[in-house]
This record gives sequence, C-alpha cells and structure tokens, in this order.
Amino acid sequence: MAFQFPVRIYWEDTDAGGIVFYANYLKFFERARTEWLRSLGIEQQALKSEVGGMFVVSETSLKYHRPAQLDNLLSVTAELAEAGRATLTLRQRALLEIPGLAPQLLAEGTIRIGWVDSNTLKPGRIPATILKALQP
Amino acid sequence: MAFQFPVRIYWEDTDAGGIVFYANYLKFFERARTEWLRSLGIEQQALKSEVGGMFVVSETSLKYHRPAQLDNLLSVTAELAEAGRATLTLRQRALLEIPGLAPQLLAEGTIRIGWVDSNTLKPGRIPATILKALQP
Amino acid sequence: MAFQFPVRIYWEDTDAGGIVFYANYLKFFERARTEWLRSLGIEQQALKSEVGGMFVVSETSLKYHRPAQLDNLLSVTAELAEAGRATLTLRQRALLEIPGLAPQLLAEGTIRIGWVDSNTLKPGRIPATILKALQP
Amino acid sequence: MAFQFPVRIYWEDTDAGGIVFYANYLKFFERARTEWLRSLGIEQQALKSEVGGMFVVSETSLKYHRPAQLDNLLSVTAELAEAGRATLTLRQRALLEIPGLAPQLLAEGTIRIGWVDSNTLKPGRIPATILKALQP
Repeated sequence: MAFQFPVRIYWEDTDAGGIVFYANYLKFFERARTEWLRSLGIEQQALKSEVGGMFVVSETSLKYHRPAQLDNLLSVTAELAEAGRATLTLRQRALLEIPGLAPQLLAEGTIRIGWVDSNTLKPGRIPATILKALQP
Repeated sequence: MAFQFPVRIYWEDTDAGGIVFYANYLKFFERARTEWLRSLGIEQQALKSEVGGMFVVSETSLKYHRPAQLDNLLSVTAELAEAGRATLTLRQRALLEIPGLAPQLLAEGTIRIGWVDSNTLKPGRIPATILKALQP
Repeated sequence: MAFQFPVRIYWEDTDAGGIVFYANYLKFFERARTEWLRSLGIEQQALKSEVGGMFVVSETSLKYHRPAQLDNLLSVTAELAEAGRATLTLRQRALLEIPGLAPQLLAEGTIRIGWVDSNTLKPGRIPATILKALQP
Repeated sequence: MAFQFPVRIYWEDTDAGGIVFYANYLKFFERARTEWLRSLGIEQQALKSEVGGMFVVSETSLKYHRPAQLDNLLSVTAELAEAGRATLTLRQRALLEIPGLAPQLLAEGTIRIGWVDSNTLKPGRIPATILKALQP
C-alpha cells in the first residue's frame, strides 16, 4: 500500500493555461517523498547536519494524463520500488480527489534518488539507519 | 544542430543542498522550448488568443548527471526528435558553460508535448502553420 | 483572532543559503489567504468561472525577522485589517512552531488585494456575497 | 542612472489569472540585484565560499501597477538608495518594454538587504571590498 499525502492546488502552482504547471508535479512528488521519509522517522535537515549526506534525484520519468486546476485537492503517493546500496527508486502518482467520486489519475512516474555527501556532492552508500527504516 | 538558449542560475533556482532544485530543469527546458518556437516565428500568447490552443506536456524523461550551482551559466538545448499530427517530441539538454573548458552535460531528456484547445483542454491537431514552421 | 494555516518547509522552498527564499513567504501568505477565504465559504476557482472576477495583489509590505529552514513547521496567519468596496487589506504573519516553545515571528506584513474582471483585468467592486461573508 | 536587466515572461512565471504571479516580481528583482552586483565585479557564490557571508533580505515594499503576461519582455532595474555598514537599500522597478512605445511601469518597490555569516546567519558588517565596489 502506497504512502499518501494531500496536496492542495494554489495560485502559485498554476500557469496561464489555467492548469498546474508541469514542473510542479515534481515539487508535489518531492513533498510526498519527504513526508514518506518523515513517517519512517527520517528527517532530512537532521540527516544533513548529523550525517553530512542527502538524497539527490538522478532520474525522473513522468506521464501526465489530465491537468489539475486551482482549488483542486490531490493525493500524492510514494512507494518504494527498489532499494540499492546507493540509490532508491520510487513509484509516485498524483490523483485528483473529488468527494463522492473515484480518484482520477493525473500524473504518475518513477523517481530515482541517490545518496551524496552534502559537501563534496560525491555519491556514497545510503546510511544503514535509513536502509533499516525502509525495510517492510 | 540543436537550438541553444543561455540560462543563468539565480538564488531562486537553488535549494538548501546548495544545488539547483531538480524540478527547475523542467523550467529551463520550457524556456528553451519557448525560445526555440519564437525563433521559428511562433509566439504562444498570440496562439492562445488567436488560435485558441496551446501545447501541454504529456511525458517527460530526464537523467541528472551533475548538479549546477548559484551563478553557473548553462546552455539549454531544444531539438525536434519527432513531429506527429497532435504531438511533438523534443530532445533537450542542460550544459554547464565554463570559459576555456568543454561544456559539461548536467541533465538531458525527452519531452513530449501535445496540442489542446485552450478552453476545453481537449487534444487536437497541431495547427498547420506550426507544423509548417517546424519543417527543416 | 487571526486565521491560522500550517505550512511545512520543503526543499522547493529553500535556497543555497540554507534558508527559505524570501519570495516564498508571499506564496505562504497567498495559501493562507486562500484558506481563509475558503473558511468563509469562498472558492476562487468557482468565483472566476461563475462571477468572472478575481483578486489581484496591488501592494505588499514585509519585514523578515528570522529565517526558516528545511523541515520547519510554520503557522501562517491572515487577518482582515480593512475592507473597502474595491480592495481588502490583510495583516499576515509567518511563525515558527516548535513543540514546547512559544511561536517565533519569522516574517510579517500587509497585503492589499483588489478585485478585477478576469478577462479585462479592470478593477471593479468586490461582489456583495464576498463582502457579506467577510462581515464579523 | 539605474542598472537595467531584461526579463522575459515564461509559462513558469504566470498563474491561472493569465498574469504574472505576484511573488515572482521578487524573483525578477533578485535576478536584477545579482546582475547589478556582478556588473560591479561581485559574484555571490564566490563570496559565500571565500568570505563566508551572504546578503539576506530584511524588508520589502512593493506596489503593483499593471500585470505582465506570457511572452512580455520586461526591464528590471536596481539602484542603490542607501548603503549602511550592515545593510543596503535598493530601489527597483519592473517595466514593460514594447517596441515603439514608452516603457510602462508594472511594479516598483524598495528592498533592504543585510549581510550575514553564511553558517551562523548572524548579522555582520558588509565586507569592505563590497562597500568599495558600490562607491560611485
């Protein structure tokens, strides 16, 4: 079962086409990943200060099915698809939630994130505490 | 030969990791697509008012190779890979430009855009004037 | 008593200084205004479609006291300071919420918004239903 | 005579009202300040690495006169109004440039920035090299 996080659409998210600007789904996906990590006890600011490392995105692949609009309420999901020593792959989706209707798929994709040293930005192994927290 | 457009990195583009936030490459790619269209004589605001249609993104696939930082100067490219009746596929890259050095590939990917009616958001055929302007 | 709305700080909100980028407080203030209006039964997308009008910002004045960082939880307030026929003035604040501590003032200011026709962008009178909903 | 910097309006800058989102003028003003500093020989990423300090915004005051739209070309100005030991105050304006017409004032305001240590974020004195570069 995927982790779910609500995202409301504000003026800042929309563009002159009257719909959500395509890059902003990557923001929503990032918010959901952050809350998914937080739900596992992982705080990224603390990791950065204490462990000296952070996740950076190395690959994204998205399909946009339907546009979202101002005032829409979305559910954004995050689900671990694959965990390696240095990278994680997540499957993520943005769904439109309308009371009384089935959620409608707006956008979906996979995001690959890798662990790097915060100062040198060199790739490294994901800390064991994180990998342990990710185990089902 | 791909169309090239310069993009300077400002504070707004960076995040607390000290690098450009991953979603912002989609902004840079969109700017380069807009300038590529403008170089072909196509203005999107005019199209929206006069033809009642616009391009929306239907698919993106990106690889991030190296991070960019504040004050970096990038070249962002746009190159038509495929033109259908209703969709265009572009290949785009972001390169770091440092005087005296060869450009370094930061990010690259493919973006698929489709034509829609501005009001109904329904897919439609790309106007002939645009398809004609795209011909080599 | 001011309306309060929680805002979590994500990577997208921060910059390479390790703090929230100054323009983003205007996003947070706008989110809080939108939720304040929603709490009064006013949905802006519906207004735009049905009444053909919208609020646009005509003046902002902000002081930044302390920076916010990644993972911080903020309370953002919205309070009506003055209601005219064509413009509203709001007082808004962003406060850092840390469990067990008194909230710390991060930023505060006043925002003036005016009513315009969605198509012509000409100023007009705020619809009576809105002014009525704003009455204490 | 104020420093001038061109800013083109892209989809990312607009919102569902069909105009530039109000917070984005603060991005444009920041870009112009950065380019004004660069024109004086000051690079902020280098300052951060070498001097360990940076400017943060402490106060903004803006009036919005007319909206900008997709594809508009703006001139954004930056002019030093006051230089103290720890803070600078700038006057900035955004003007719409249409060939053959006088520039139209879209937005204007004052921005106060203060010098802080990059690590502790504590206020400090602006480095002498910067104050010297600012002298007329």
